[in-house]
Parts: sequence; structure tokens; C-alpha cells
Amino acid sequence: MTSQQNPPEYGVHSEVGRLRKVLVCAPGLAHRRLTPTNSDDLLFDDVMWVENAQRDHLDFVNKLRERGVDVVELHDLLARTMRVPGARDWLLDRKIVPNEVGLGLVDGTRAYLETLEPAELAKYLIGGLAVDDLPDDYRSGYLALARESTGVREYLMPPLPNTLYTRDTTCWLYGGLTLNPLYWPARHDETLLMKAVYSFHPDYAGSTVWWGDPEKDWGQATFEGGDIMPVGNGVVLMGMSERTSRQAITQVAKALFEGGAAEHVVVAGMPRLRSAMHLDTVFTFADRDLVTLYPAIMDGVHTFSLRPSDKAPGLEIVDEAPASFVEVVAKALGLPKLRVVETGGDVYASERQQWDSGNNAVALEPGVVFTYDRNTQTNTLLRKAGVEVVTIVGAELGRGRGGGHCMTCPIVRDPVDF
Amino acid sequence: MTSQQNPPEYGVHSEVGRLRKVLVCAPGLAHRRLTPTNSDDLLFDDVMWVENAQRDHLDFVNKLRERGVDVVELHDLLARTMRVPGARDWLLDRKIVPNEVGLGLVDGTRAYLETLEPAELAKYLIGGLAVDDLPDDYRSGYLALARESTGVREYLMPPLPNTLYTRDTTCWLYGGLTLNPLYWPARHDETLLMKAVYSFHPDYAGSTVWWGDPEKDWGQATFEGGDIMPVGNGVVLMGMSERTSRQAITQVAKALFEGGAAEHVVVAGMPRLRSAMHLDTVFTFADRDLVTLYPAIMDGVHTFSLRPSDKAPGLEIVDEAPASFVEVVAKALGLPKLRVVETGGDVYASERQQWDSGNNAVALEPGVVFTYDRNTQTNTLLRKAGVEVVTIVGAELGRGRGGGHCMTCPIVRDPVDF
Amino acid sequence: MTSQQNPPEYGVHSEVGRLRKVLVCAPGLAHRRLTPTNSDDLLFDDVMWVENAQRDHLDFVNKLRERGVDVVELHDLLARTMRVPGARDWLLDRKIVPNEVGLGLVDGTRAYLETLEPAELAKYLIGGLAVDDLPDDYRSGYLALARESTGVREYLMPPLPNTLYTRDTTCWLYGGLTLNPLYWPARHDETLLMKAVYSFHPDYAGSTVWWGDPEKDWGQATFEGGDIMPVGNGVVLMGMSERTSRQAITQVAKALFEGGAAEHVVVAGMPRLRSAMHLDTVFTFADRDLVTLYPAIMDGVHTFSLRPSDKAPGLEIVDEAPASFVEVVAKALGLPKLRVVETGGDVYASERQQWDSGNNAVALEPGVVFTYDRNTQTNTLLRKAGVEVVTIVGAELGRGRGGGHCMTCPIVRDPVDF
Amino acid sequence: MTSQQNPPEYGVHSEVGRLRKVLVCAPGLAHRRLTPTNSDDLLFDDVMWVENAQRDHLDFVNKLRERGVDVVELHDLLARTMRVPGARDWLLDRKIVPNEVGLGLVDGTRAYLETLEPAELAKYLIGGLAVDDLPDDYRSGYLALARESTGVREYLMPPLPNTLYTRDTTCWLYGGLTLNPLYWPARHDETLLMKAVYSFHPDYAGSTVWWGDPEKDWGQATFEGGDIMPVGNGVVLMGMSERTSRQAITQVAKALFEGGAAEHVVVAGMPRLRSAMHLDTVFTFADRDLVTLYPAIMDGVHTFSLRPSDKAPGLEIVDEAPASFVEVVAKALGLPKLRVVETGGDVYASERQQWDSGNNAVALEPGVVFTYDRNTQTNTLLRKAGVEVVTIVGAELGRGRGGGHCMTCPIVRDPVDF
Repeated sequence: MTSQQNPPEYGVHSEVGRLRKVLVCAPGLAHRRLTPTNSDDLLFDDVMWVENAQRDHLDFVNKLRERGVDVVELHDLLARTMRVPGARDWLLDRKIVPNEVGLGLVDGTRAYLETLEPAELAKYLIGGLAVDDLPDDYRSGYLALARESTGVREYLMPPLPNTLYTRDTTCWLYGGLTLNPLYWPARHDETLLMKAVYSFHPDYAGSTVWWGDPEKDWGQATFEGGDIMPVGNGVVLMGMSERTSRQAITQVAKALFEGGAAEHVVVAGMPRLRSAMHLDTVFTFADRDLVTLYPAIMDGVHTFSLRPSDKAPGLEIVDEAPASFVEVVAKALGLPKLRVVETGGDVYASERQQWDSGNNAVALEPGVVFTYDRNTQTNTLLRKAGVEVVTIVGAELGRGRGGGHCMTCPIVRDPVDF
Repeated sequence: MTSQQNPPEYGVHSEVGRLRKVLVCAPGLAHRRLTPTNSDDLLFDDVMWVENAQRDHLDFVNKLRERGVDVVELHDLLARTMRVPGARDWLLDRKIVPNEVGLGLVDGTRAYLETLEPAELAKYLIGGLAVDDLPDDYRSGYLALARESTGVREYLMPPLPNTLYTRDTTCWLYGGLTLNPLYWPARHDETLLMKAVYSFHPDYAGSTVWWGDPEKDWGQATFEGGDIMPVGNGVVLMGMSERTSRQAITQVAKALFEGGAAEHVVVAGMPRLRSAMHLDTVFTFADRDLVTLYPAIMDGVHTFSLRPSDKAPGLEIVDEAPASFVEVVAKALGLPKLRVVETGGDVYASERQQWDSGNNAVALEPGVVFTYDRNTQTNTLLRKAGVEVVTIVGAELGRGRGGGHCMTCPIVRDPVDF
Repeated sequence: MTSQQNPPEYGVHSEVGRLRKVLVCAPGLAHRRLTPTNSDDLLFDDVMWVENAQRDHLDFVNKLRERGVDVVELHDLLARTMRVPGARDWLLDRKIVPNEVGLGLVDGTRAYLETLEPAELAKYLIGGLAVDDLPDDYRSGYLALARESTGVREYLMPPLPNTLYTRDTTCWLYGGLTLNPLYWPARHDETLLMKAVYSFHPDYAGSTVWWGDPEKDWGQATFEGGDIMPVGNGVVLMGMSERTSRQAITQVAKALFEGGAAEHVVVAGMPRLRSAMHLDTVFTFADRDLVTLYPAIMDGVHTFSLRPSDKAPGLEIVDEAPASFVEVVAKALGLPKLRVVETGGDVYASERQQWDSGNNAVALEPGVVFTYDRNTQTNTLLRKAGVEVVTIVGAELGRGRGGGHCMTCPIVRDPVDF
Repeated sequence: MTSQQNPPEYGVHSEVGRLRKVLVCAPGLAHRRLTPTNSDDLLFDDVMWVENAQRDHLDFVNKLRERGVDVVELHDLLARTMRVPGARDWLLDRKIVPNEVGLGLVDGTRAYLETLEPAELAKYLIGGLAVDDLPDDYRSGYLALARESTGVREYLMPPLPNTLYTRDTTCWLYGGLTLNPLYWPARHDETLLMKAVYSFHPDYAGSTVWWGDPEKDWGQATFEGGDIMPVGNGVVLMGMSERTSRQAITQVAKALFEGGAAEHVVVAGMPRLRSAMHLDTVFTFADRDLVTLYPAIMDGVHTFSLRPSDKAPGLEIVDEAPASFVEVVAKALGLPKLRVVETGGDVYASERQQWDSGNNAVALEPGVVFTYDRNTQTNTLLRKAGVEVVTIVGAELGRGRGGGHCMTCPIVRDPVDF
């Protein structure tokens, strides 16, 4: 992948500059697989009404498109990729193997998938292929064991409902991207799909990959895009959380420094709380100098700066205490200060709104953000601060605990001036 | 490893034949790391009094030795392996890498470990190396991030308290062994330690490996020794459970058939209950024709037979319903029937005794087993059935939910006649 | 209460006869108190967007009213009750006591509540009065302890969000009602509010009370309306569940038999599963001979019949096995059979729809029911069976795991012919 | 009860003065009822080996007796109480009622219990009477429902395994006692048994009761002896925790002040953590000026003083911040300072030892305490501080998360000088 030239226009140069191209993934078959008993294993808090989630997601996409954003949808993207000679073989060679589908089911499963149109194949790649989905002609005696086994093993390809959160799987950081090793095993295959895209699809092949490869084992080095923000000015913010480890952060920082993409990584050492899943669940940008954050968590953040060093292995690490994360970020951007909009409402409402992705805004351009409709108090505070807030319906989409920021993976975003 | 000849005497040819050589692992530093807050992540139900657990484990070992068993202890075995030229480098090259210890901590950590005597190194390989264990001379500025991060990442090498259950990690099945991909990521490194032993230690190098390699990703193909029993007569029992998948079972069956080691694998499709962790938590042998089992679980088992087939990929699968597992096993062994000792006591006591490893007996020879002292009612029933029951103290050892069977990995065990 | 005559028209004589008068409770302050950390203690699975829940509830009420139902709302009803001389004193004498608000806070809290208009008082009676809600003029030094204490004790009156489910608290069974001792302590005060209404409000005072009194301790005898269905023909169905005990069922059956209200109670012995919270979460009527049910639970029901007996203490109990619950109910109603609409969709969708109250229909009249919009597949099956299905929005209301049946307490419903 | 004179010698005047008479309760039938599935409901973390728990408890009792303590055992005490005319009727009139055993089972159950010898009756009163325990002659058709119902309802009298912790149920505070309303409904009946003893047993009838009555509903006013310490000098310490509420604390303080029993209550506002179950799980006395405590919890305590006031309702409340709890207690006792022994060992061991009741010492006399054997590091620190530490085996007894302090209810303890 890295041997070719990037299409010149691809790259994300800020958190709030003009968003030009973005990857999303519509709800679909994977979410139809969710039930009250399996949702925990698939990392969802509750089941959703899939048709309405689709309607609300489509509305989000339309609003983005009406405002000039080129929106790429993952099912489409994957289907188009599957049309490229070699792509289907490459992916199925990796997914339809005895370790995944089981001995005696490789040939039948592969044969069935070969019959499918690209769009149908993409549907199953994301939505999962249950044992029962395999048509009679492709079955063998080995299915007897499959029907009797437990959990994810009932699937020949696992459902990937967390593809809804395209933010996590890959990150464009300035002119290149990362293919992220995700924390939960249930999400690993998401990155493999993206590698297929970035390896075969003509629009994406040749993109610069800073770090990451789903075909390797990354051990403790896990990295999720919800923790990562290329804010501009050569700075990248990284939440060090349950899901994004120092083992990954330091490797990515080094790769960015060596690639000349960044000069400064600001690390938010997140408190040891499960509610602080990702940095973007408690902190996002709404304008060039304006952030929305949840103070109950952000007050506990311990901040570090990573910069290039001549001394191997190449990083200088500074403990920024007692400076606050917001102060360190402002300084890194060359701003006198950041304006802050805290989660709105009383003690009950603010906790509820953080939970409902109230601080998970995604910017269309400086001062224009998308958020869920339900966080009315935080939205009002943003509007009072001069931000244009475009709302999307969160009743179903929000049940996986992710908002507009989580559901978007920017591919092209302009820089902003500081 | 597979290119050399096995030491001729190694091999496990039954579940109850004379036990001649066995691998155990004493409680130690890894268990001193257990606390009420981390024990769940490390797969323990409760903390233990380590000194007493060590005393009780030593007593178990002594009783085995007094009865003529050659008992190998994992700390010792690993220490001796670390003395073999190349072994230490091989293992540390794989464990002390940026993905595990983090960038900037590789050199210091490795340098410190190089100073250690083999026994001390083995202690940390099993017990874990906490960030705080690294002496000042070997520290770098990169430690600042490590101290602030969460969970297993506070360790430069993770503690492996489940090594106590040597049964799971490797299985001798007749004349060769498997290096098992364990279900929980927290246990993966256990198998890497065993690969070091089987690659470098002169007593073990050259052993036949039927299947498994901790340096490869096995996906859904997970396999744990607690589910596996080479009962003799060319038969292997395999529990298909949360932890041992059909993806692994079929591959191992095929490897055994191809290696001429077995002709019949009987699969126990375990009910979808967490209490049925492994087959050996609900079913073990106490004599050549006598088993002890927990009926509340075993009554729900669905049984299959796997046999070699000329047709690719090489297995014939038979659904044995409505025959019970016990019936199928008896027939496979050529026995008219198996005698059965159920978990003892009333409805309360039997549930409690299964929980306390009451059915997890390990045989010294036909009709002589080791069990925990606390399951007095089941022990009495076994004695009434003519079995000699030697008890070990389970007050501390049993808190990880494993008994004598779980804590032993037979290396040499004689066949029995049927 | 029981000394006066019932208003002649009050009474519920079937599950599907014309609904004429019904009690509901709008979402409000109590739901604004819900947060991700306290929702479990308050028996909610998730927080809700209260404004939208109110909108959707109002729409439900309007649809009922448009179809001629007299809808009584609990905040209004309680406010009107608080206007009746003596009612406010009676209720506050019972709620504002040292055991609840704490020594030193009784006078101030009572004094503050005395200043409130009835509607405002009703708001706090249902929504809870937090320690911080007490104005400065009514505070004392004793508040220091209150601010430091934990859980429900931060409240001077606890929030009662489960009033949303008016079905549970009281049951009209033919011509009289029960004042139910609810299973969870967090809900006990709901019944006290209803006793105030039935003791003081002129429309309700004098109603016949078959059983129950929130001022007494009922021990194991807990009873919740979600398990109870007066289906007509002298028959009452009662789910024997985690929340509705045999201790209560037998007492109520006896009281009904003695009062001449019923001749036959059919008990559904629910399987020991938490998902089978109440009978009406898995079984409701949609027409005089048509039920909708979730087979995965209902197949495990063990059915009993209770009838009057001359022998003390007055019941005859018949184990109906192997007859199914549906068969026993049909026979009790004198029907040749009941038509059954099962939860719709594939294995995933049906589990999801049961969870989302898909079987929790409430009838307006024979063949006309209200259900949530989201259970489209079950709704379609009901329509195909000839039922008119009116949908209400469940995105927010459904998050407490209750649907139209749970949210309605019929006060007047006509009989049907069988 | 309060109308008669106290036996002059009864009363507890300190935490460390000579212990002369104490109430304990041996493990027994109630613990044989514990299983992995019901232990949570019965508030136990794990099941125990009852025979060994009995052996270890007996050893504890013997050690107390050898050192001159008059040890009263609850089964014995209750049996002797059941011999007193009227006592059996009084207790069974309250326990064998339709709300508890169910209609149709009252007569049979009562008749069966009437046949029992006092000791046998006491065994079932504490150990519970399962539906299956009722002999055929006493059964009726109503049992059919009982066998089909869930949870505690399978019992005609519930098992009370937490009687093991006699500390919680009643507290002797100087010359009188409290009959405590316990937090969990599963424990309420414990206090009823104690009321029978204090009402009928000639040694105890006539004792002064400061507060509490199990026949009344105390609402939020819950009170558990594990939080309460009459330390002498007219001072009582009270942990304000999940289980002991300000509603109860203020009432008891007032009663003690009015009774002239105490002049000062020091309240430890416990942090909102489940591990801080009771004050005595993190703080106990080992000598007149020496305490052992767990700093990770005690550092978060917020301290208040309650003293008598002329102003109704009779208390003066002082927020002692920023003074620490230990400082406030020292001052209250007239000591220049308290010596402190913290939980021993490194960060892992101290957390483990607190969990294993390491700080839950009970004093025989100043400087002599009983603790569990397993907390060797804390025991060593106590010994280094000059304390004589007598150990008891905690392998089984400790599994309910209580130690020597929890398992003893002092009835006579001398004052100490300060």
C-alpha cells in the first residue's frame, strides 16, 4: 500500500476545518443480529429498532451531503472494492479459513460467497453469516457441530455491528492513516475489511499508512480512533484509555514524527472509569477555539506531551501536571485559551447527556457541528456560544453509546488557522 | 520441534493408567498479584492466602512423589530451560517487544531481565513484572505513561496466575502433544512459555507436536486441556464448550487421525451454561470403568463422534443422539457400561460440591484418585464404589475453580486394558 | 374505604371489553432524576429523554381520549386529592417522618411542602424531593448529614419513576380493587399514594378493596398488576413470578372467591427467568379469543387452577399439567380454543421484540389494541389476524421495559361474551 | 421489655475493655443451604465447607472460653428461649403466617414445628425450613404452588446465614441495647429472633432497649452493629454507610443522649464504595489508644459530631472537617493521639487483607485481639506494636466477608481508662 502515491487531496488536517469527505456505515444486518442476550458480547448496551436507526442515519448522511460533504458509505465502499479483481480472493482467503469457519465448512462457505453479487457479499461481510444462512447446497455434515456450539461460533463470519462507529477503525492523521488494532477481539475483523479497501479500491490504494496492519498481532498495542484527534498545527491529541494504550500511542507518535506529519502529541491520561470509554465521549471540538467537555471526567485527566527526540527510541515525554488538558491543548495550538462549553443541565441531566453522547460533536466546519437532538441542554449552551448545531435523531443510533463523532471517519478535512 | 524423535517414554495413553510423570505449577508471585479488584480480569473468583496455597500444593506434590510419580514443577522447568543457550533470547525476543512493554522500555526491561538468575527470571515470567518492579537503573522517562495507564498495561510482563492449571495449556494425547491456543487473551502467554520449554529443554525438545503454536493466530480455534481426555483404546474425549471450539476440535481430531494417534474423538456438546467451564469440571474418570459426574450438567450434553474419513477434509461426523455421553464413551472403550458416581449430597450440597471441583478427580492409577478434602459426600460415594481417594486441601487452591485434574498435566501415563 | 358504596360504574370485567376509564401516569420529574448510575436502583434499564417521553405519552393519552376513553392522569388525580380536606395531612403524616426524612428535617420539610400548591406537591410526591430541593428557609443543621449520605437517602421523599407503570400498583378485578404490596422496596410508596386517592378523592372513596394495604407489612406476599388479568367469565389469570408470589395469589384468590367476584383463578407458574418479569410481558389478549405471546417463555409455564373450596382455608388447587396455559385459559373461558399470535420475526427479531414489549398489548375493545410502533413484525401478524393495531412511539417510553399494557390501569372496562 | 430492671452486670462500656460475656452463632443448617446460585441473594460471596467452618468457629469459641469469656451461642440461646412458656407461641405467631408460609400451609407448618424439641426448632428458625423439609403428614395440596415458585419462597421459614455475624443484629451500647432494623430484607427476621430472646429468656428479659423493634417498619432508618462502637468516655462511633443511615443514627443518638448513656456520637461518613460495607471492615480498636485501619477507605471519611442540644429535636451537629476521623476520635476519648496500624503488605497484599477482614479485630482486653490467621502481614504489624494477636482460621468463616469483630456481639465488656 505504501509504495504508491496518495491521492493528493486525502488527509485530515484539523478537527473543525471544512469537512469534505467522510466515511460512515449505515445500520443493517449486523444490528438485526443484536438481541438482549448477545448485545453485551457485541458491545451494545441495548438492542435497536433497525429500520428507524437506518432512517435516522440516512437523514444524517443527507444533511452532510446537502452541505457539500462527499459521504462514503461502508457497505457501498466494500461492495465496490469487491468488484476489483483480486480483492474478493484476498479477503475471503483471510476470512474463510478453518480457524474461523471450521474444518469441513471452508469449501461450502467459500463457494456460496463466490455466488454472491458484490453488494450481497458486502452485506454479509459486515452483517455476519450465520450458520443458518448457508443454503442447503453448500452444507456439509460438519454443520452438526456448528449448530451445537456456543456464542460467536454459530457464525461462519461474525457480525460486526460496531462498524457503525467508523471513527475507531482507521484514522486519517494529516496526510496518512492508521489501520487500528482495536481493543475488543469482537471488533478485529473491522480493520481487515478496511485493509481490503485501502489495498484494492482504486480511490484508496496507495494511501500512506503510518501504522497498523490487521494481519499482525499487536499485543497490548491497541488503538481506537475515538481517542485520536489531529487538531492541526502539527498536534495530535490522544486519549490513553482502556482501549488506546501507551504501547500504541508511543508507536504512532514516533511514526508521525518520523513521517513529518506531526511534531507534538498531547496525551490525555484518562481516569480509570469505564464511562470514559474514549476521549471523544467526554471532549470534542466545536469551533477552532471552542470545545465541549464533561468536567466530571476531564477534571481527572493527567496530561503528557510527546515530542520528537534525537535519542532512541525517538520520543521526549513531558509530564504536564499541574497544567490541565485544556490548557496544554490551547498552548499547543498557539491559542491564548480554549473556550469551554460543559455538558448542560443539573447534576442529573449532565450525567445523562454525557451518557447520551452529549459531548460527542462532529464539526462540519468551524462553528458548525452535528449532535444528537436529545441533548437539548448542551445543544443550547453550544448555540449560546455561537455554534450552529445541526441535530440528528439519537433515539436508536445512540444506544451503542456513540454519537456523530464516533459515526464519522473524516477522510478529507481542511486545516484551520490558529 | 517436530523434526526430532520423541523421548520414547513420553506420552499419555489413558485417563486412569499409572501416572508416571506430571507437570504442575506451584502458586507464587502471580497469585500475590491478585486483589479483589483485579481478580475478575485474571479469571479468579476470589483472592487466596498464597502461603497456605503453596503449603497445600506442596503437600499435593509430595503425595504424588511418595507414590512414585515424577513431578515436574513449572517454575523449575522454566528456570532450567532458561539455562539452555538460546532459550532466554528466544523467549525475551518474543515477550520484551514494543507491543508489550511499550516503546522506550524495551532496552531497560530486557537489560534488567538479563541480569537475573534463571530462577528469578522464571519467577517474573510466571508472576509478572510490574512497572514498579523495574529497578531505578533500568528506568526511562517512558515510565511516566506506564504508571498512568490502566489494567494489564501496568505490567511489563503480565502475571499468569492460571499457570496453576497446567492441564489447560498443553495436552499429551498418546505419543504427542498440543500447544493450545487458550480462550482468554489473559492466558495466551502461558502457551508461549511452554513452547520455550518444548523447543529448548533437552528432556522435551523433539517431542511430537500434533497441533498448535502460540506464535500463530488461531482465531476462533481455541482449545483447553480441561476439555480433553485421551481415555485409551484410540479414543479421545473432547468437551465442546465456551473455551474449546469446534474449529479447534475438528483440526486436532484430523491431526490425531493423520498421526495415527487416535481413531475416534467423542465430542461432548456442553450446554450453554457458564458453570460448565470445561468437561473435567463435570466429568472425570476414577477407574477404568468408573466416572464421577455432575448430572445437572451432563444430562444436557449432546454427543457426537468424529472418525477418520477418506473424503476431504478427512472427518466423518455422527450425531449420537439420543445416546447419552456416558453410553457413547462406554461403547467407544469396548465396555458394557460405565459405572457412575454422581456428585454427592442433597440438592444444595451437590451444587456446592460441583462448584468446589467435586467431580474434578485426577487418577494416580486405576481406582486411586486425588480430590479436594472439602467434597466429603462425593468422596464418600467414590470410596463406597471401591475407589481409594487421597485428599488434598482445597481451601485456597480451589478458589480459582479448579481441582486436582485441572492442576496436573500428565506427561507419562500408562495405558489401561478394556 | 370499604364502608361506602362503590360508584356503580367502576369495575374491570375483561381484558378486551370496551375500555371506558383508565389511569395513566405521565413521565416527569421522577424520570429527570434518572442517571446512568442510579437507574439500576430505580429499576430502569436506561435513561430516557424525558421531553420526548412526555410527548409520546401525551400522544398515547390523546389517542385513547379520541376513541372515547376517560383518561385519568396520576399527577392530576393526586393534585386533586391533595385539595380534599385531610388528604394532605394524611399523606404527609405518613411520608414526612423521622424514619424517612430523618430527625431534624421533619418540621422544615413538612413546612415547605405545606406551602406548595396541590399540583406542585403532587409533582414532588411522584418525582421525589431531593435534599437540594429544600429552600434555604426550611433547612437545618441536620442537612449536613443528609448531603453526605448515600443512595436513596439523599432524598427527603424518594422519586417514584415506576409510577409510569400504573398497571402494577392497583388492580381493578371486576367490581373491586387491590392495593398491591409491590416486590421492590423502591416502589412501596407508589401504593401509599394510591391509598390516599382511594381514601379521599370523592370519585374513588368508597371503592371496594378486595385485598392489600400499604400501611401493613405483607412479607413475602407481593403482588403486581402486570401479572394479573381479569379475563371475564369469573376467571382471573395470575402470573406466579419473581414479583407476584403464591403467598399473595392465594390470599387474593380467596378474597375474590369470598367476595363473589370470581370463581376460578388460573395461575401461570412462570419459569425462573428474569426476562419473564410479569405475565403481561409475554402474554396479553388482543381479542376475545386471540392472544399474543412469546413462546420461548410461555412454553415453560406450569399451570394451576384455584377454585373455592368448602374446606378451610378455602381453596382447591389443581395442577393442570400437562395441559398448556393457553388450553386451560380457553377452557376456563368456555372457548373451543384461543387463537395465538406469536412474537414476530426470526430468532433474533422475536427475542428483540419481546424485550421491546412486543407482546404487551392493551385492548381498547375486542380486536383493537395499542402497541409500540417498533415491533413491526408482531404488529403485522396481529393485523393479519384481523386486529386493529394502533401504535404509540416506544423509543423513550419503552426503556423501562414496559408497554401499553403496563402503562395503563383500567378502572372501567366492559365484559365480553364468550 | 423496658419495664423491668436490667440485670446489673450487662452492658458494653468500651471496644477494648475486658470482654466478659459475648454472643456468637455457629455455622450450621443455614450455611448448608448456600449454593453458588443462591449465595448472592443470601449476601454471601461464596459457599463454605460447613463442617470446617464449624470446626474453626468452635476453636474460636474455645479460645474465648479458655480466656474466661462467657460465650453464649445463638442456637443454644434460642433453644433455651423456646422452652420458656409463651416464647414459642409468640415467635411462631409472627413467623408462621399466611404472608410468609402461604395460605393453606400455616396449620401444617405450625403443627409440625410444634412437634419439635426446642433445639430442633431453633435449628430450623436459624437454618430455614424448606418446603421439602415438611413431613408428609403435615403437607397439603397448597404445596403444589410452593414447589413451583421462585427464590426465597421455596422456604416456609427463610434461612438466616448472616446470623453468623451477631454483631449486626443487636448492639449493647453501655447499659442498654438496640434491636436493629437491618438493611437487607433477607436479614430482617434475625432481629425478630433476638426480640424473642430479649422478651422471654429470663437472663435477658427486662434489658433496657434504647431503640428498635423488629415488629415495626423503620423505613430508611436502618442500623447495623458493624458500624457501631461504644468506645467509652460517653462516646459512640457510628459509621454512616450504605447499611447504617443518618435516619437511624440521629434517632439512636437522641435515644442515647436522653437515656444518659452517651454524650457524643462521632459519625464516620463513609465513602460511596461497596467495599466499605461497615465501619468495622476498615477500622477497629486493638488497644485503648491503638486502632488498625485501611487507609485507602478511611482517608475518604468525612467526620461529624453529634451532641445533645436543648433545642428540639435534640441534637447539635458539627462538621469536623478538615479534622480526620482518627483525630476526632482521639480528642473525644481525651487522648493526645491514637496509634495507628495500617493494613500490612504492598499495594496488592493490603487490598487483599482488607478484603479478608484484616482490620476486623475484636479485643479480649486492652492489647489482646482475635484476628484471622491469613492476614499475616497486618497481624505482624499489630504484634510489632505490642498487641497480642490470637489467630483463628479464616479459610471458611471469612467467605461471608466478616471477621472476629463481625462474629461477636459483646454483652458484657468493661470500661477502660483514658
